[in-house]
Parts: sequence; C-alpha cells; structure tokens
Amino acid sequence: MQHSWIESANDPEGDFPLANLPYGVFSVAGEPPRCGVAIGDRIVDLAAAEAAGLIDGQGTFDRPALNDFIALGRDAWAATRARLTELLAAEGGNPDLPTVAMADATLHLPIRVTEYTDFYASKNHAFNVGVLFRGPENALTAQWTHMPIGYNGRASSVVVSGTPIRRPMGQLKGEDGPVWRPSQRLDLELEMGAIVGADSALGDRVSVEQAEAMIFGYVLLNDWSARDVQAWEYQPLGPFQSKALGTTISPWIVTTAALEPFRCEGAPRVNPLLPYLQESRPGFFDINLAWSMNGQVMARTNYNVMYYSSAQQLAHHTESGCPMRVGDLLGTGTISGPDRDQTGALLEMTGGGKDPVTVNGESRTFIQDGDTVALHGFAQGDGYRIGFGPCTGIILPAKE
Amino acid sequence: MQHSWIESANDPEGDFPLANLPYGVFSVAGEPPRCGVAIGDRIVDLAAAEAAGLIDGQGTFDRPALNDFIALGRDAWAATRARLTELLAAEGGNPDLPTVAMADATLHLPIRVTEYTDFYASKNHAFNVGVLFRGPENALTAQWTHMPIGYNGRASSVVVSGTPIRRPMGQLKGEDGPVWRPSQRLDLELEMGAIVGADSALGDRVSVEQAEAMIFGYVLLNDWSARDVQAWEYQPLGPFQSKALGTTISPWIVTTAALEPFRCEGAPRVNPLLPYLQESRPGFFDINLAWSMNGQVMARTNYNVMYYSSAQQLAHHTESGCPMRVGDLLGTGTISGPDRDQTGALLEMTGGGKDPVTVNGESRTFIQDGDTVALHGFAQGDGYRIGFGPCTGIILPAKE
Repeated sequence: MQHSWIESANDPEGDFPLANLPYGVFSVAGEPPRCGVAIGDRIVDLAAAEAAGLIDGQGTFDRPALNDFIALGRDAWAATRARLTELLAAEGGNPDLPTVAMADATLHLPIRVTEYTDFYASKNHAFNVGVLFRGPENALTAQWTHMPIGYNGRASSVVVSGTPIRRPMGQLKGEDGPVWRPSQRLDLELEMGAIVGADSALGDRVSVEQAEAMIFGYVLLNDWSARDVQAWEYQPLGPFQSKALGTTISPWIVTTAALEPFRCEGAPRVNPLLPYLQESRPGFFDINLAWSMNGQVMARTNYNVMYYSSAQQLAHHTESGCPMRVGDLLGTGTISGPDRDQTGALLEMTGGGKDPVTVNGESRTFIQDGDTVALHGFAQGDGYRIGFGPCTGIILPAKE
Repeated sequence: MQHSWIESANDPEGDFPLANLPYGVFSVAGEPPRCGVAIGDRIVDLAAAEAAGLIDGQGTFDRPALNDFIALGRDAWAATRARLTELLAAEGGNPDLPTVAMADATLHLPIRVTEYTDFYASKNHAFNVGVLFRGPENALTAQWTHMPIGYNGRASSVVVSGTPIRRPMGQLKGEDGPVWRPSQRLDLELEMGAIVGADSALGDRVSVEQAEAMIFGYVLLNDWSARDVQAWEYQPLGPFQSKALGTTISPWIVTTAALEPFRCEGAPRVNPLLPYLQESRPGFFDINLAWSMNGQVMARTNYNVMYYSSAQQLAHHTESGCPMRVGDLLGTGTISGPDRDQTGALLEMTGGGKDPVTVNGESRTFIQDGDTVALHGFAQGDGYRIGFGPCTGIILPAKE
C-alpha cells in the first residue's frame, strides 16, 4: 500500500486510501458546490487545486456536478488520477494541495443523473422475488439467463446519501377494489450503480469491450421499493411509481481504475450467451457488500454473485441503437446471495413478509417510519480497502 | 377566425393560423438554433424579436431549446401569447416583426427532453394488444380501469420529425433458443405527447387540477416499437430495448391555450376513479388524428377516445412523490378507436401480423425498410384549424 502525507488515508480499514481517490461534489459553508476527491478524512478541493495551477481539469472542477469532467474522456481520467497520486504521496507529494475536512463539508449528488436504468441481474434475487410475485413455476422468466433484464427508472428521484425518504402513498389492491393509502410494504434494494462516462449515438451499438471502457466508476445504490404498489401496478409495463419514491446513491464515485485489482468472475453461466453479450475477460469485482437497519447488520453479500456485469448491461442497453450519455446511471439490480442472511431486500429476507426478522430486539417485515437503512461496500486489498463511503436514508411518515 | 398580416396564416386548412402559435426551435443556414413560433408558412424569430425590443422572453429565446422559456411559468406563457397575437394581427399588427420562411429553416427538437414516460391509455388499444400478448382472458390487467398504466421510456432516443430511424437488431425468441437478428415486427404507435412546464419536488404530490396547469402543450408522438423484441423482453419489468430505437415527435408544441376551445370528454368510465384521479372538468381535446404509410392514410381516430388524460397521467406520476421537471415528455399511449381503420399500430390493425393490409397495392403486416410513416393531427375550429405539423420518419435497414 502506498502511503499519503494525509495520515488518515493510511488507516488500513479506512474507505479512502491513496489507492482509491473517488470523485464527489462538496460544498463548505456558504460556498457553491464543486468537485472533490476523498482522501482519508479530507477532501481534495479540485477547483482550488486547478486555480492554484496544481492540476488540470480543463475548467470543469468548479462546477456542481462531475458530468463535464467525466465527458473529458479516459485520458483525462487517467491523467488526473496519476497527478493526484503524485500530489498526495507521502514521498514527493505536495502538502500545499488544497483540502478541506470532510467533517466540514456537505456532500451533494456527484453527477446530474442524465437517465437512470435499473437491472435485475442476481439470479438468487430474481428467482426469490419471482416466486413471491408469480409462483415457483414462472419465477425466472424464459429469457433471464439469455439477456440482462432491466427497466428505465426515474432519474429525477435519485438522491444523495443522507436525504430523507418519504413513505409513499399509493393505489393498492384492496378487498373490494383498489384503495389509496400509505405503502405498507416499503423495502430497500442493495445494489451498486455504474456511471456511464461516454456518449453513444442513436442507431449505434456498443460492444461489451467498448462498454467496459465507457464506465467511469461505481457507487452504492439503494432502490427503495414499495412492494404493494409494485404488485398492483407492474403488469404489463413494469414497475413505475413503486420505484419512484427515491433512489439513494453514495456520494463518492469509486473509479473503475481503483477497482481494477479486484476484477473477478461472476456467477457461473447456465447457458452460453449470444456473442453480443460475451465478455473477453472477467467483468465483475470482488466487493464486499452489506446492509444494516438502525445500526444492525442484516445481510452480507458480494458483487461477484451477479450474473450480468455492468458492461454487459450497458452493451445490451444499446442493442436497439439506444443512445447512452455521460451521467447515465445503471443500477446492477438487487445483489443477493443464496442464503437468507445474504439477501439484499426485505421482501426476500422475510419471504414476502411472512417470516419477520429481529432488528435490535424489534420485529420487522418491511421498513417502518423512522428506520434508517445503510448500505456498506469495500474491496479488501493487501493492507488497505477501497471503500464506498455512506449510503443511508431514513424513512419519514407518509403525507396523507 | 382572427386574421394575420401574414396571408398564409389565413388559409382555413393550414396548420398554423393566428389562433395556434405553436413553439419550436429552428435554424437557418449556418446560424445557431433558436426559439420560434409557427405562423402560416413562416416562423417568428423570437430571438430577433426580443433583440428588437418587440417581445420579452427574459433572454431565453436565443437558446437551442424551449426549456428555459417554459420554466418562466404560466404568466410568461400567457403574456407571450397575448403579445404575439397583437403583433401578428391583420389589424394593428406590426409587420416589422422578424420572421423567416419555414421552407428556409431546419427544425430541431423543441425541448431538451428531461425524462420521457409513455402511458397506455386507450382501452381499445390496451385490450387489442393484451389479447395478442396474453390472450383474451388476461388482456386488460385488473388495475387498468383504476389507474393510468405507464412506463419510463428513454429520453435520449426522442428525435424530431424527419430523423431517419434505423431498424434495430435484437435478441428474439427462436425455435431453439434466442437468436440475434433484425427485428421482423417493426411497428409505429400513434400518440400525442404532453410537455411538462413546471417542476414538482421529491415527496410532493400533484393534483389533477395542478397537473393540468403544469402542462405547457402537446406534440404528435410516434413511439416506434419492435414487437418481437418486446414479446421476448417485457416480462417482468416491461418494455425496454423494444421502445428505445427512436421516438419521433413533431417539431411544434401546440399550447394548451390554443387547444382550450376543443376541450371535451374522453371515453366513458367503467368504474369510478379514486379521488386523486378525479377531474373537475373534461380533460381531453377533440383532436382529429390519422397516420399514413408512404402517403396512404391507414387509420383515422381522435384523442377523445382515450380513457386517461395527460393531467391524470401527470397526477398519477407523482403518486409516490416522484419529482417532475420542466421538459418531461408524457406520451399518451397509442390512440386507437374500436374499428380496424381507427387503430394506431400495425400490431392491432393486422391482428398481430396475421391479417395483412394493402399499402399502395403492396401487402404489409409490419413496417419494411424504406417505408415512411407520418402522423397527422388537427383540431377543427370554425373556419380554421389548430394543426400539429409533420411527424414523420423513414425506416433504414438494420446494421447487422
């Protein structure tokens, strides 16, 4: 592990060592939001660093979202990472690099989310949820092992970690026809999100290799879901309002470059994929994931249980010639291992609400008002971790 | 009918009389795109008119999309319409108002489409397509008469009339597992699109009355659809790549103000709606619609056959607290009357491809390469029409 002159970055269990350098958007009292990089318990002020002539962001760092920096392309990503590694190194670094204490900063959404797509790529999750929605015989739809299944989500509802989430009202199936009331089956979904870093044109397709090169980085993602709204609305056009109450992402984008040492295989293939979805090298990363409720860890899993990688999902997204744009957010889908304590949603963990779990001595089937859900993720290196930082939200009561 | 000093605006069968004044974005040779208003066979150059001190757009008219003007709000919409009506009137108008010939202009997408949602609100269409996808017993899902069913579409694939559309490749169901080939069942969908003109916040809901006041105007919309891709992919998360090959909209946004005299009831209700979807006044407009292929009119229908209005769809869209933003585009869903020559999609017209139609002497089940599809729409006033202008696209062969 390479050390930094910022001592807190050398903590072997810290999220933000010199090997990580994730990007975000922050502000400090009264000043406008701008781009930064997390290092230990501090944030490199990229706008100030560029103003001081220490780094070149082509004027994009003083903006309130990373989209323009990301749009500069892979060479700019690599050059910025190399320069920051140099400036922050314990030996030969530059302690004049402007930083602020993370404790003094407010973190914002790191990107303007251009469009948001969510997939469904854990076989365990797809099967478990399929059983609950459609019974065991139709649980996994016929095409599931042949293509990444996804739906377009709602970009406007993506929020940064810490934003309170309001329990939605919804039209639900009642005994004597539909009723209007607060959702009773509010759930989380433990996911990661890939940030698209390059555009593609209408009518063009992107190969899996090209897709991999287009992904700037990853965040943690909680796709809050109202299961009772979902059950009533989702046929035949898919989830809509059940998934639009809010989607929380972590404030720091961990770059593909930082995750490269953790590249690994995903779940074994049931059948060969069509050529347009085949990967020439492993497409997953060994990332330890967990979620907690009110401070109690409820489940642990790993990104490597997934069946389709973000690169495969992005390639499939362009199958029809659909244009992709910088700032598009692709949710991996809920990440669940095979066991109950590896499930990324309460729907699965409680068998559709039939088998409650205990949280700090209290019984839960779904999320109650005032509950806080947090996602956790890190890749374990030799003496360091590549961490994702916080991804939390508290549930507020419905506005009736 | 009020006359204009622009003579072509006084044609009783023209699309753009003084009573219409639809907004668009245009450019003329070498100059950047800017905002304009269609009048007869000319376009009012709003940027030049503002520069000349004739009208006040608060500096938004020289931009390449109408979003910033629309965001000024309802009072600005009303003031601009009143001022243009005054400037263009035959009596008391101002012939110094800068205009360009429509024939000399290139028309662009009128808005940056923030997000795109498509609904499914013609009972005839929903039933007919439901029979083909799921059989007559499950054709209309249980919630259909209780709530507007919609899905999030892909904003990046929305294009302006005249943009060629490439036949998509797709993963399709084959005899011995999935195959990769050009879509064989390429279809149109005759729709209208509502343009959202105001923001709402995360966690807030919008009433039907508020929603109505938020809609800036309407366009024609063709949601090109690859039916074979759709059939294979759509369970359980809805249409995805089958609808992302391109969605064509007409270049002129006909304002709600211009359509107000044509307000009318829609299709009769099968059951009462929950209060959050009830309208206090009729929510539809009497708009004659048609579509043609290669110049031959294939079907005629009317917007007033629909079951849910755009205002109801927008209200439902915020049921969960989903934020709406200026520039959101809401497709009405395919507009089909009960008869074959009133259907807004070939899927319905040909009974899923089993019963071909004749187009200029040639047989068609779905769209072939080189075919041009055009949508047509106008509201018939007393001696004038409120027209929508062109909404056309030609199909290019697939890139294999």
